[in-house]
Amino acid sequence: MRKIGPSCKSRNNILWNLVFLILHLFLVSPVACLAQQDAVESYYQENGHRILKEYAKLLALPNVSRNVDDLRLNAQWIRDAFRQRKVNVELLELEGAAPIIYGTLGALKAKRTLGIYVHYDGQPVDTTQWKHSPWHPVLYTKSMDEGGQQRPFPEQGEKIDPEWRIYGRSVADDKAPIISILAALDIIHARELDLNANLTFFLEGEEESGSRNLGAFIDTYKDKLDVDIWLIFDGPFHQSRRPQLVFGCRGSTGMELTIYGANRYLHSGHYGGWAPNPAMRLAKLLASMKDEDGRVVIEGFYDTIESIELSVKEAAKSIPEFEKALRKELGLAATESNNAPYVDQLLLPALVIRGMESARVGALARNVIPPTAVASLNVRLVKGNDPKQMLDLIEAHIRKQDYYITYDEPTDEERLKYDKIVKVRRRGGMLGFRTSMDLPIVQWVKRIAMNVAGDELIMMPTMGSTLPLYLFEEKLGKPIVITPIANYDNNQHAPNENLRLGNLEYGIKLMTQLFSEAMDVDQ
Amino acid sequence: MRKIGPSCKSRNNILWNLVFLILHLFLVSPVACLAQQDAVESYYQENGHRILKEYAKLLALPNVSRNVDDLRLNAQWIRDAFRQRKVNVELLELEGAAPIIYGTLGALKAKRTLGIYVHYDGQPVDTTQWKHSPWHPVLYTKSMDEGGQQRPFPEQGEKIDPEWRIYGRSVADDKAPIISILAALDIIHARELDLNANLTFFLEGEEESGSRNLGAFIDTYKDKLDVDIWLIFDGPFHQSRRPQLVFGCRGSTGMELTIYGANRYLHSGHYGGWAPNPAMRLAKLLASMKDEDGRVVIEGFYDTIESIELSVKEAAKSIPEFEKALRKELGLAATESNNAPYVDQLLLPALVIRGMESARVGALARNVIPPTAVASLNVRLVKGNDPKQMLDLIEAHIRKQDYYITYDEPTDEERLKYDKIVKVRRRGGMLGFRTSMDLPIVQWVKRIAMNVAGDELIMMPTMGSTLPLYLFEEKLGKPIVITPIANYDNNQHAPNENLRLGNLEYGIKLMTQLFSEAMDVDQ
Repeated sequence: MRKIGPSCKSRNNILWNLVFLILHLFLVSPVACLAQQDAVESYYQENGHRILKEYAKLLALPNVSRNVDDLRLNAQWIRDAFRQRKVNVELLELEGAAPIIYGTLGALKAKRTLGIYVHYDGQPVDTTQWKHSPWHPVLYTKSMDEGGQQRPFPEQGEKIDPEWRIYGRSVADDKAPIISILAALDIIHARELDLNANLTFFLEGEEESGSRNLGAFIDTYKDKLDVDIWLIFDGPFHQSRRPQLVFGCRGSTGMELTIYGANRYLHSGHYGGWAPNPAMRLAKLLASMKDEDGRVVIEGFYDTIESIELSVKEAAKSIPEFEKALRKELGLAATESNNAPYVDQLLLPALVIRGMESARVGALARNVIPPTAVASLNVRLVKGNDPKQMLDLIEAHIRKQDYYITYDEPTDEERLKYDKIVKVRRRGGMLGFRTSMDLPIVQWVKRIAMNVAGDELIMMPTMGSTLPLYLFEEKLGKPIVITPIANYDNNQHAPNENLRLGNLEYGIKLMTQLFSEAMDVDQ
Repeated sequence: MRKIGPSCKSRNNILWNLVFLILHLFLVSPVACLAQQDAVESYYQENGHRILKEYAKLLALPNVSRNVDDLRLNAQWIRDAFRQRKVNVELLELEGAAPIIYGTLGALKAKRTLGIYVHYDGQPVDTTQWKHSPWHPVLYTKSMDEGGQQRPFPEQGEKIDPEWRIYGRSVADDKAPIISILAALDIIHARELDLNANLTFFLEGEEESGSRNLGAFIDTYKDKLDVDIWLIFDGPFHQSRRPQLVFGCRGSTGMELTIYGANRYLHSGHYGGWAPNPAMRLAKLLASMKDEDGRVVIEGFYDTIESIELSVKEAAKSIPEFEKALRKELGLAATESNNAPYVDQLLLPALVIRGMESARVGALARNVIPPTAVASLNVRLVKGNDPKQMLDLIEAHIRKQDYYITYDEPTDEERLKYDKIVKVRRRGGMLGFRTSMDLPIVQWVKRIAMNVAGDELIMMPTMGSTLPLYLFEEKLGKPIVITPIANYDNNQHAPNENLRLGNLEYGIKLMTQLFSEAMDVDQ
């Protein structure tokens, strides 16, 4: 690894180290960080127009996930941009996969290595729904929804308003962190800041299509991935629009249940009351899985949750009240669990009926007894839950309701032998993860983020979605913190995706501090 | 009304009437009826080829319900055929409706009038599914499914095999009774049999499209419909393939329930466990309506059933065992109500989930919490149940589960005010009916049918389907008996509809006896 830039601070005297540490924590670090913020701000004022132009160039490269040829052009562009910043960079390849952009940058005195994860692929686009081409980035004075007007990209010397927004596919998800990294490296070079951690960059090109090769990449290139913490630059700010660090993801698995009645549609007049109705049986089976308060009553469902640290409970309390507004937005008088706090629910596994079908409703309904009834279940997991074991618990519950379980279409013999038959089709699973907020290196990340975000920063114990990122923890055994920089209303995955420029500035500041701030961590 | 044919039996002596009645019941009637059967059989042997040729002509007239021009050609053909048999016939008209063929025939001594109901319209045809054109009747040596071969229509003197089948739309449903009537009138003329009841023929042209004008026809022409009993010539033999008389129909009504969650699809990871899931709520609501034995637990659901006479219970016992074979055919190990007898179930109202839907299942399922869940309910009624009142009971039950009921899409205000919201969309209803088997005129019909069918005859207290025929009872207050003549496997409503010629012979015999057998009834 290469060292870049001279040190701007000298603290070589070993004798003074303890004193210095104390001073640093309570005095110097905030001062230094203020100096860095000034550096970033002055740089951004002078060079913001150039940053935005580079951003626009990257955004002009189509990057729909699975379009590997397009993705390779993105990867090459990013590789070259890293190289210009003296990052030691290469493309990691696997047959048929979009490459990983892998880069390292060494710091002379650094004892720790930060792993920086970003993805450069984007969601598909329905161009008919976009106001401008998704690959022709445009600048607005504020959000289109709030009446923003299109304006030209700024020239040198023009002040950049943090409320301005750039529109284009992946401008938030997830090219904003890429531009933030490039700008942060420029600042470190230009302002001659110390690099105080080794950096390992890992930019994936298949996140939006399920990261299907992420596990194989990690296995194949394990030796290159020896970092102390993974910082995942993805996702948006909190629903309250405040910046956040997120310490976990829910996992996910599921199954589909098909319940059988007669082997064909029956006339509901001739057979109503006589023939079993699979729709009613499905209703009874599903109803048996939860109580009236929304609590899952499947035996063992909550037994494998890893215990929640006090720090998490404290952090949860600090999350601003947003649920009343959210309920109003969603048209809900109450939640499933009698208005128990949102975060408490996220820290529990959940059983969700994601779809249900039996014959037809509405104008297509007919007076029949349906031959089958189907429910598709999604099970959200938290740290400690094993997907296979959770599905086993559900099957055990179903058997307790006197069902015979088959994994195929029931045979004629099975139909005549068993009154209550259900076909189970299990899906695979992804684990949940949750990083302890008590780890010293996590505390350091928190401190850096608070330098930038101030008291606004929310420590979010987990988010609800499921990401293959758990593989970093499972395969490499290192903590993960998700460090979003995009605005909450960025229209991620949707038409008219956008980034608020104030959030870009936040990203650049956060990256600069993470790369250059001394890491006083003793793990 | 006109009297046709001279009397072949003389019983004018009033003094001998009582003696005669007793003799008649135990001796003469069976003898006379045997003589009639001989008359029918000899006539059928001599003239069967002509009957089948006339049948073929009627079947060649397309009669798809709602094709009023086609139907009018059928009606004119039938009117002319009736006229040739000296029936006093006219077409009853209502704006936009297929006409009713209305005919009367008076008997000199008759005190009673039989109402004969048939319909002359048929179900739509998917000609690609038919072996021959539905409008080009063909004769087979037995059922196609059992390897029957096509053969020419018979010539004079050729013996007609009762296993032969004619194929064509409406050959069973419901033109077979029309040909039976025409042949029976021919026999009465040719063999100079007494007509012993006044006959009122009522042939509808909209049965297969819901009899939407039947009520209006009855109201408009009420004065012409003063009969003592309605005999409904429609439907097939019993599932056991034995002839039957059917004394009732179930009624029908229903409602659609829509349960609401958030006002849009929610991510099941972010909101699973927090946001109410309408699919789970629907499951719980439906599950609350029945117990584990399939019994409806909605308060009052079974309270308005008209009490069942002893004769019905006796008749039910005489129905041959067919359920084991039926369960096997349908792939059912047991029925909804622990194998309680089929007929017992038909005599109860039933609650049937006829369709259920929430988001999607299978390959289209996504990790969402659905915004709505819908169930379409069918309620089958028996005599005594009022459709509106039954729906009211369901609504009362729903309210007891803490639901707020609306009949429109809920407003934002309602959504924020009520946790559990259901939209109810009620359907209209048709009454069930059930004719007492104990009525003397019904006993007479039974005796006639037994003359023809022997001990094979099943007295079926009700059938499961719902017909607008209840209007005859509701508006005219007269008993109804359904007198099917078609074979059980006639492919009614389906491609390759057919009639077994043995069933045509049954129909001709039954009609001849009904028209010419003395009606010794004192109602």
